[in-house]
Amino acid sequence: MTGDRAGDYRILHEADLRAYLAGLPDLKRLLGGEPAAWAITEVGDGNLNLVFIVKGAGGGIAVKQALPYVRLVGESWPLPLSRAHYEYLALSRQAQLAPGLVPAVLHHNEALALTVMELLEPHIIMRKGLVAATRYPRFVDDITTFMARTLFFTSDFALSAAEKKEAIAAFAGNHALCKITEDLIFTDPYRIAEQNRWTAPYLDGLAASLRDDMELHVAVSRLKLKFMASPEALIHGDLHTGSIMVTESETRVIDPEFAFYGPMGFDVGAVLANLLMAYFASAGHERAPGERAAFEAWVLETVEQVWNQFARKFLELWRAGAAGDAYPVSLFAGEQGAARLEAERQSYIQRLFADTVGFAAAKIIRRIFGLAHNIDFELIEDPRTRAVSEARAVRLARAMIVETGAFSAIADVTGAARKLRDWMPELSG
Amino acid sequence: MTGDRAGDYRILHEADLRAYLAGLPDLKRLLGGEPAAWAITEVGDGNLNLVFIVKGAGGGIAVKQALPYVRLVGESWPLPLSRAHYEYLALSRQAQLAPGLVPAVLHHNEALALTVMELLEPHIIMRKGLVAATRYPRFVDDITTFMARTLFFTSDFALSAAEKKEAIAAFAGNHALCKITEDLIFTDPYRIAEQNRWTAPYLDGLAASLRDDMELHVAVSRLKLKFMASPEALIHGDLHTGSIMVTESETRVIDPEFAFYGPMGFDVGAVLANLLMAYFASAGHERAPGERAAFEAWVLETVEQVWNQFARKFLELWRAGAAGDAYPVSLFAGEQGAARLEAERQSYIQRLFADTVGFAAAKIIRRIFGLAHNIDFELIEDPRTRAVSEARAVRLARAMIVETGAFSAIADVTGAARKLRDWMPELSG
Repeated sequence: MTGDRAGDYRILHEADLRAYLAGLPDLKRLLGGEPAAWAITEVGDGNLNLVFIVKGAGGGIAVKQALPYVRLVGESWPLPLSRAHYEYLALSRQAQLAPGLVPAVLHHNEALALTVMELLEPHIIMRKGLVAATRYPRFVDDITTFMARTLFFTSDFALSAAEKKEAIAAFAGNHALCKITEDLIFTDPYRIAEQNRWTAPYLDGLAASLRDDMELHVAVSRLKLKFMASPEALIHGDLHTGSIMVTESETRVIDPEFAFYGPMGFDVGAVLANLLMAYFASAGHERAPGERAAFEAWVLETVEQVWNQFARKFLELWRAGAAGDAYPVSLFAGEQGAARLEAERQSYIQRLFADTVGFAAAKIIRRIFGLAHNIDFELIEDPRTRAVSEARAVRLARAMIVETGAFSAIADVTGAARKLRDWMPELSG
Repeated sequence: MTGDRAGDYRILHEADLRAYLAGLPDLKRLLGGEPAAWAITEVGDGNLNLVFIVKGAGGGIAVKQALPYVRLVGESWPLPLSRAHYEYLALSRQAQLAPGLVPAVLHHNEALALTVMELLEPHIIMRKGLVAATRYPRFVDDITTFMARTLFFTSDFALSAAEKKEAIAAFAGNHALCKITEDLIFTDPYRIAEQNRWTAPYLDGLAASLRDDMELHVAVSRLKLKFMASPEALIHGDLHTGSIMVTESETRVIDPEFAFYGPMGFDVGAVLANLLMAYFASAGHERAPGERAAFEAWVLETVEQVWNQFARKFLELWRAGAAGDAYPVSLFAGEQGAARLEAERQSYIQRLFADTVGFAAAKIIRRIFGLAHNIDFELIEDPRTRAVSEARAVRLARAMIVETGAFSAIADVTGAARKLRDWMPELSG
């Protein structure tokens, strides 16, 4: 395979890429026509990588290449190319476990940290659709299938302890990506950090209050420890609505470069957090009062359905005959055993719900006070209006993370969100 | 190094071993005199390996070689030689972290799965001393230093998340040894299993009641999952009183071949469980009522001190300036932050105590109904007397594992043990 040796890394700009792809017969055939006629566009709007769309007479592909640094920040923040290896590993595993819900991989070059995937068209990044108040009828079923299957089948319920330990080890090297999460989600938003930003001056007071909120610091530190040392399953690790591409009839989960063995609630919480942010941002996007009411109702219903369907599917997989070493069925024989195991399944999923609520909250706070923000809020042009939406989200998040036990069902989360829809925070400045 | 390549493994019997050691100049010098004059004795009384003591005119050594099967069972139960590698890795790390509390390694041959260590003399296996009602005044201080330092310095409090993940991966291959624990401690004693045995017929009813006790099965399955998927620190993994060699003035922890990244409470619980078993066994060893009362009081005091001193030392290390990524001090600035972090430390150690109580109980039950028993009970000749001691231990263990929350301090454990000292169980048969 061309260049597939360590030391052969180079950044492929357009001309390079054209020549490289022309040298790969399968891809050349797929694209069709003369390489010189291929249209190559760099479209990466993420924070880390180069992404090209290449189109020929016969078809199109997406090409993703890791850069040796964080694209959002620049060469001053190096980041190992090995993340492309872990992304490829995760994509391959997810494709087996959740067929049709991740992009097909057409080519991978380890040394170039480069992966070629099917072109998802006319899919758009879900977050963009949510800003435009678009509803996605397939989303709940697809994302809950993706999460239930990828999490269950890589957990101790489906794997032997030996397989699980080997799988953990296979992803252990992806720690530089984990560290981004540890720093940017679980640490920096709660202290003075150069990279933090927020909607100033309106949220200055709120930012300061979070930095002084020791109950919050304890709660987020517990979540950080759980993130670092609870290898429950192979998690996507960055499952926000910017990592999901959708049409009305299809859903694809992309970009699992943060994948490693971590707590399941981190993935489920990421989905819920981003839906909740879409909900709170919605008020800031309306041009007339109530014009997005149906969309907002759909978002909260989706929050409930994502949790409920995920929990249902996860439990169904468990009941269907878990082959892993956890909770061996031989210890739960007979009617009494089956009943007690079922009660324990419910109890397990309740603990997972608590994790999910906490992680969701941490994901909300980081998007408002940390380095990486999202367009749900950023596209609200008036900063005061934006700050109002953000402050509502933060109020919910603070309760979810510090008083997690008060949210015993997903309806408690959506109910609290609904109550904050028109709450007017006191702003600074 | 002679034979230090894969494929060069062979079992070293006496003549072979003599020749092998004669070829190692440092060891030859240490032993002194002519190799033909060295006294070589096989002394392995453990369940897995060959152990030789070699003595020459100048000094002695201990030689441990892993067999490709479980010694206790035979060639029908294969077990990878790689455990010698993990034991060597763990011994080296423990020697750095707890100097003087593990035997010095003099030589290691990976291919032969062989490790040569200093000869511990006149140390005896602590369990033997406990059967003889011997008290060990150094024990509490030494074992708590060993546990506090080896656990703390391999945890997220002392390591960066990256170091921690690499360390977990370095021990991930030791899963065959973990599986012995998973099966023999957390599963088999609770179901019909060929290798189970107990003091029949007296404990037949108790054995059957444990197999039907679904609350117990849920509790032990939670502990099993925690054992499999909570890589909190590098644990010894088999820290019973048969893995501790003592004199009145010295303590050495040996045999860490079960080492891997697991829950800290498993190690602390192992020490407590084996002291509690020594306590309950003691009544069965007395020839006159009360003759071992002072010893028994010392054992319970030691149980309390082991937990209290361990907790104190662990917290002191944490307070002294944790360099790891968990609970970053930058989030707990000022007087208020320091106070809140200290409260969280206490809360953490309380959660660790609950784990410890649960794991201790699981370790007790497996020694009475599983494959591997211990001499504390086995050397009680009269089976009815033995069964009485065992039933008392099981009664405490069942409460500790199912009603863990009722034991909020170590005095609750020793208090419950004391109350059971003369309790007369109903026996079968």
